[in-house]
Amino acid sequence: MTRLADAHRPLRIARVALHWLVEPGNAAVHRMVRRHGPVRTLDKLLDGDVPDQELRGSVSARLKAGDPYEAAAVAIARADDLGARIVTPEDDEWPRQVDDLKHLLEIPSDNRIDRDTAPPLCLWVRGPLPLAETLDRSVAVVGARAATAYGEHVATSLAFGLAERGWTVVSGGAYGIDSSAHRGALTAGGATVAVLACGVDRPYPMGNTSLFDRIAETGLMVSEWLPGADPVRHRFLIRNRVIAAATRGTVVVEAAARSGASQTLRRAHALGRRPMVVPGPVTSAMSVGCHHLLREHPQIRLVTGLPHVLEEVGSIGNDLAPTPRGPDRPHDVLDSEAMVVFDAMPRRRPAGPDALAARAGLDVRTVMRKLSLLEQLGFVVRREGGYMLAPKVRDGGAPTENEGGARPDRESGAPTEREGGAAKERESGAPA
Amino acid sequence: MTRLADAHRPLRIARVALHWLVEPGNAAVHRMVRRHGPVRTLDKLLDGDVPDQELRGSVSARLKAGDPYEAAAVAIARADDLGARIVTPEDDEWPRQVDDLKHLLEIPSDNRIDRDTAPPLCLWVRGPLPLAETLDRSVAVVGARAATAYGEHVATSLAFGLAERGWTVVSGGAYGIDSSAHRGALTAGGATVAVLACGVDRPYPMGNTSLFDRIAETGLMVSEWLPGADPVRHRFLIRNRVIAAATRGTVVVEAAARSGASQTLRRAHALGRRPMVVPGPVTSAMSVGCHHLLREHPQIRLVTGLPHVLEEVGSIGNDLAPTPRGPDRPHDVLDSEAMVVFDAMPRRRPAGPDALAARAGLDVRTVMRKLSLLEQLGFVVRREGGYMLAPKVRDGGAPTENEGGARPDRESGAPTEREGGAAKERESGAPA
Repeated sequence: MTRLADAHRPLRIARVALHWLVEPGNAAVHRMVRRHGPVRTLDKLLDGDVPDQELRGSVSARLKAGDPYEAAAVAIARADDLGARIVTPEDDEWPRQVDDLKHLLEIPSDNRIDRDTAPPLCLWVRGPLPLAETLDRSVAVVGARAATAYGEHVATSLAFGLAERGWTVVSGGAYGIDSSAHRGALTAGGATVAVLACGVDRPYPMGNTSLFDRIAETGLMVSEWLPGADPVRHRFLIRNRVIAAATRGTVVVEAAARSGASQTLRRAHALGRRPMVVPGPVTSAMSVGCHHLLREHPQIRLVTGLPHVLEEVGSIGNDLAPTPRGPDRPHDVLDSEAMVVFDAMPRRRPAGPDALAARAGLDVRTVMRKLSLLEQLGFVVRREGGYMLAPKVRDGGAPTENEGGARPDRESGAPTEREGGAAKERESGAPA
Repeated sequence: MTRLADAHRPLRIARVALHWLVEPGNAAVHRMVRRHGPVRTLDKLLDGDVPDQELRGSVSARLKAGDPYEAAAVAIARADDLGARIVTPEDDEWPRQVDDLKHLLEIPSDNRIDRDTAPPLCLWVRGPLPLAETLDRSVAVVGARAATAYGEHVATSLAFGLAERGWTVVSGGAYGIDSSAHRGALTAGGATVAVLACGVDRPYPMGNTSLFDRIAETGLMVSEWLPGADPVRHRFLIRNRVIAAATRGTVVVEAAARSGASQTLRRAHALGRRPMVVPGPVTSAMSVGCHHLLREHPQIRLVTGLPHVLEEVGSIGNDLAPTPRGPDRPHDVLDSEAMVVFDAMPRRRPAGPDALAARAGLDVRTVMRKLSLLEQLGFVVRREGGYMLAPKVRDGGAPTENEGGARPDRESGAPTEREGGAAKERESGAPA
């Protein structure tokens, strides 16, 4: 059963149709949607009632190739077959930080790619993790496709370290640095998100198929484009803005002399995210772009590894104070049985009391009692399918710290600092 | 015969004695010399007529070890045997830019090494080049003793490139980066200067003896300390200020986590020189200090090679406009015989008409006629022992360029932008 069987179905279908009709990020469509909503915007586009002439032209060209409603229906069926879902701003799962992209529209630009930086109207998602929560504490690690062994080593270990500390590693699924970043996170048993420039049913490049399969199994594949969409060249540049906006910072590990990294980092900076670059040997062509970025843009931070990256992204938001050490750790407040259950908790996927009892070597009733305690103390959270570590605990902290009320709210994924949205804990964030 | 047989002899001897009596760079001695001159300052120190209590104590301790006049005489005799000379502010050969060090004294500091940053009172020099002219267009290339193959490669090729373009490469004569820098310059047939923290008769480290021999043969060995002085640890830090002040910029190629590089670059910056750092692999311990410097000090420039370094040092002083291309080159104004003579000119050491005739394959009379023309046009200069390329020509420029009168003055080594000093062309800059 798909998530479309809900009250927002017409909205969702309109959003999908709009992404088929006009390339995601279009500034004129964004303005229309803000004013009229997705359904009326689609009607207007279909009626040719469009103030922007350029937009009117591109819409009428696309309409010759098919019907948006039909295209949306086909895409939705294709996604259903694949187990993919649509996530829209109507969902709790929507990562609200990508809506910050609207601020980029205020920056004047002659360049079309730089102009069409509106937030996506919807995202296609494949994988078991809840999107918003997964992206909440995330860092992008991106770089050259033709990476060197040095760059791949740096990207892998950086991503491993981030994942180990509960940070989600976001990248673009490309060869080279992107692949190393995803692999590093997977190796650490952490969450990784591939933001694609084509349909989630046909991730590009083909050679990374087994990597994509692993990501879809334990992480997330995300795309603005409908299933079936081709990885056309300019889409990579459009896609990059989502990587910049979805994460708390972007680390470029290797970049040749002329790369798209500069654009991504400029946008990240404009959005208040942290732009970071890893230097390398001056003798390496794959570090020329990195050094150029560091020379030309004083706002870009030189980072050499995990501590520097954490220093950058950890300084955004008051829920990211330095990881507490010492008294606030679980074993300081838990009895020995609760501690055994705590130690048996899976990091990423929920487990039921039976599985936990088997893993902990305790009887199920004791486990359920201790789970109740752990949940009250905020060490674990209940999810569809069982219990799992609370996000912050996963990151090495503890929920008992007394730093005001903001922290527990953030813990539950509520968008306290962001615009609108339901603040209640989502009960079934993942699709069936 | 030594250069001491001159009118300034008492001054010189007093300066040498002062450097024996008190470590070079002492701020209190500097103030006394400015007020009373070297001879009266020495008298006052010997009489105990010293306002600074700390200085009085250190002087009386040193006096127990010997007599300053005797120490000076011994050092001068030792230098004579070695073919070394004393250069003082009374000489045309004095590099006036090191006097800028007095500005550092205005920066408050609790640290003794940071406090005693006064200009040297005299310099011991060993080697065939005139000191001021050699240091006029110079860049320091320094770094870790325990350099990696990467760092040595970078330092060598950077120094080679600088030397090839007529820049003097200054370094400290240490193992690792320093040695690579000197070697790179020597390989290019360029000028290199080792600024030592001990007597020029006993350069440290011993293992670099053959390198020092080559430097003394075609470049310069320079020290503030009397011949015979030991390379005591703190002297390296005192010495570093001279490297920072004497050059137009300092490039740190590799530096471990805690290195003296930060101090040198801070001073270079305070003096208006260009502080530069070469990044490296983040996996290398020998680049940790470099990356730290780049992260902590926004005024330090990341440089990856020769073009970046030239961009920095070339922007200081109006005689350093971009190397002219096209019409202003010798072959545009010279007849073919003059061109042949021009091509036969040595870069660094003067050659007489006979040697040039042999080299050019022309008769001596023709050569002398063309030399006269070349000299009038400013392509060559007359020196003791013959003719050589004019400094700017050596660097790829041409003297015919019409950019006002400042350029020819700078060409002749006159300190137009610096304090005082004789502006006339030096007729015998090099020692016998």
